[in-house]
Amino acid sequence: MVIRRLSVLGVGLLGGSIGLAAKSALSDFEIVGYGHRKATLERAKEVGAIDRIATKVTEAVEGADLIILCTPVGIFEPLIGEMVNVLKPGAIVTDVGSTKRSVVSLAEQTLPDHVHFVGSHPMAGSEKRGVEFARADLFQNAMCILTPTPRTDPKAEKEVTAFWQSLGMRTTRLSPEEHDRLLADVSHLPHALAAALVTMQSEKALTLAGKGFLDATRIAGGDGALWRDILMDNRDNVLASIGELKKHLGALEKLLSGEGRDELAKWLDRAAARRAKLLEQKLREINPD
Amino acid sequence: MVIRRLSVLGVGLLGGSIGLAAKSALSDFEIVGYGHRKATLERAKEVGAIDRIATKVTEAVEGADLIILCTPVGIFEPLIGEMVNVLKPGAIVTDVGSTKRSVVSLAEQTLPDHVHFVGSHPMAGSEKRGVEFARADLFQNAMCILTPTPRTDPKAEKEVTAFWQSLGMRTTRLSPEEHDRLLADVSHLPHALAAALVTMQSEKALTLAGKGFLDATRIAGGDGALWRDILMDNRDNVLASIGELKKHLGALEKLLSGEGRDELAKWLDRAAARRAKLLEQKLREINPD
Repeated sequence: MVIRRLSVLGVGLLGGSIGLAAKSALSDFEIVGYGHRKATLERAKEVGAIDRIATKVTEAVEGADLIILCTPVGIFEPLIGEMVNVLKPGAIVTDVGSTKRSVVSLAEQTLPDHVHFVGSHPMAGSEKRGVEFARADLFQNAMCILTPTPRTDPKAEKEVTAFWQSLGMRTTRLSPEEHDRLLADVSHLPHALAAALVTMQSEKALTLAGKGFLDATRIAGGDGALWRDILMDNRDNVLASIGELKKHLGALEKLLSGEGRDELAKWLDRAAARRAKLLEQKLREINPD
Repeated sequence: MVIRRLSVLGVGLLGGSIGLAAKSALSDFEIVGYGHRKATLERAKEVGAIDRIATKVTEAVEGADLIILCTPVGIFEPLIGEMVNVLKPGAIVTDVGSTKRSVVSLAEQTLPDHVHFVGSHPMAGSEKRGVEFARADLFQNAMCILTPTPRTDPKAEKEVTAFWQSLGMRTTRLSPEEHDRLLADVSHLPHALAAALVTMQSEKALTLAGKGFLDATRIAGGDGALWRDILMDNRDNVLASIGELKKHLGALEKLLSGEGRDELAKWLDRAAARRAKLLEQKLREINPD
C-alpha cells in the first residue's frame, strides 16, 4: 500500500504526534485531521501535524488509505458508525486505543467487508495532553501492540505494522483478549492504584511526601474521563487485577503480622531484583547498543 | 554548642553525605566514622566524608559532641548499648532512622541523664546505597523531621535543628507517634505496594511495562533488609495503612462494578488534581523563588 491520504481522527498528543512523525517518515501524501474542537485542529495545522482540516468524519475519511482513530476509546463507536458508508474499498482502519477487545469487536461487526480493520496500541504518550505536546519522536523505540484476530486480513496487518515501524516503533502481536488482560495488570491497575494512593492520604501526610511518593503517583496525573473510559472498558480484567493485588497485600500482611523477618526481606529483595532486571531490559530496548 | 567532634555511625549514602555536607558547612572540627566494613570506611575517608576511622563504637563516640546513628534502624539497639558508658556529659545523640517511636523510646530508656537524645528523620536519600553515591548537596532543601518528646531537652533539640539546617535542610517537628503514623501512609505503604505491584506481574505482562510502570515501582528498588527493618518496626501503622488502602480499592471496585461512570471520572480527576497541587507545592519548596 502506498499511503496517499492519511486520516487522523482526534488530533491530541497521539494524533498530533502521528502527524508529525508521519511527515518526517513518509512523503507525497496528505494528512487530514478531524476533531471536535476547531482551535485544536487549527493549532495542529499550524504546527504541521496535519495538512487539511475536516470538520466532519465523513469528509475526513473520504478517499483515505489509512484511517487512525486517535480519540478517547469512549468515542470510537459513533466515529466508526459515521465513517461506515464513506470508506473507500481497500481502506485500512486502525486505532490507538489502550483497550482492544471492544474496538476490535465493534469494528469487525460494523465495518463493511471491503474495508480492513487492524487494532493497534502504540504504547507512547505522557500524562500531558494536547497537540501542543505532540512530537515527531514520540514513538521512537516505543512498543506498538497489534491485536489481529482470525478475521484480520494478513496484508492489512502487515501494512499497519509497517506504518508503525516507519514511525520508529517496535511491534508485537497479541490477541485483543490477551492484550486487555496483560495491560490491566501492568498499566490499568497501576494507574488506578496511584489514584487510590493519592486519595487515601491526609493533608498532613501529603506535606511529608517525598520524591518516592511523587514518582509512585505520577501516573495518577492523567485525564479522568480518558482513564475512566479505559478502566470501564476493561473493567472485568481490572477487577481481576485488583483481586490479584489484594492477594499479594494479604501475603504482605501475613509477613508483617508474623515473625517472618527473613521472608519479608527476601520478598522485598525479589521485587527489587525483578524491577532492576526489568529496568535493564527496558534500557536495552531503548538503546540497543 | 560548638561541634569539635562529630561521630557518624554507619558511613553509607546518608552517613557519607552528612560527612561531606558538614565539611562544607562547618569548620574546625573532626568527623569520626564507624562502620562494620573496613573497605567502606576507607572509601569514606578517601572521598573526604570522614577524617578518622574508628573500628569500635566506643572509640567512635569518645569525646564526640554530636553522634549521629546512620546505620539501618535494626542495628540501633546494639549501637546505643555499646556507647552508653563512653559518651561525654552534654553529648547529643541523634539518628537518621525512617521510623521514630522505637529509637526514641530506646534511647530515652537507655542513655544516661547527662546525654541528650533528639530523634531526626532527614528525608533525603535515593534507592542507591553506599558511600560512593554520597554527595554534599544531598540534604539541600530537603525536609528533616525532628521528633522531640516531653523528655527532650529543648536546647539539644535546638542544636540538632540548627545542625540539619546548616546542611541546607528545612525542618519540622512531629511526635514520634505521629511521625510513624503519617510516614506509614506516605512512604512505607507506597514502598511495600510498589513491591507488591512488581511481584504480582507475570513475565509476559512485564514485557509490556512502560515508563508509567517503571516510575510507579521505582521505590521498590531499595534494599530488602533495610526496608524490612522499617516495615517491621512500624508494622502496626503499616498494617493500618494497608487496611485504609483496601477501603479505597473497595470503593474503586464499587465504581467499576456499577454504572457510576461520572463518579469514576470525578474520583480520578480529584486524585489527579490533588497530585498536581502536591507537585506544585513540592517544586515551590525546592525552588522558593
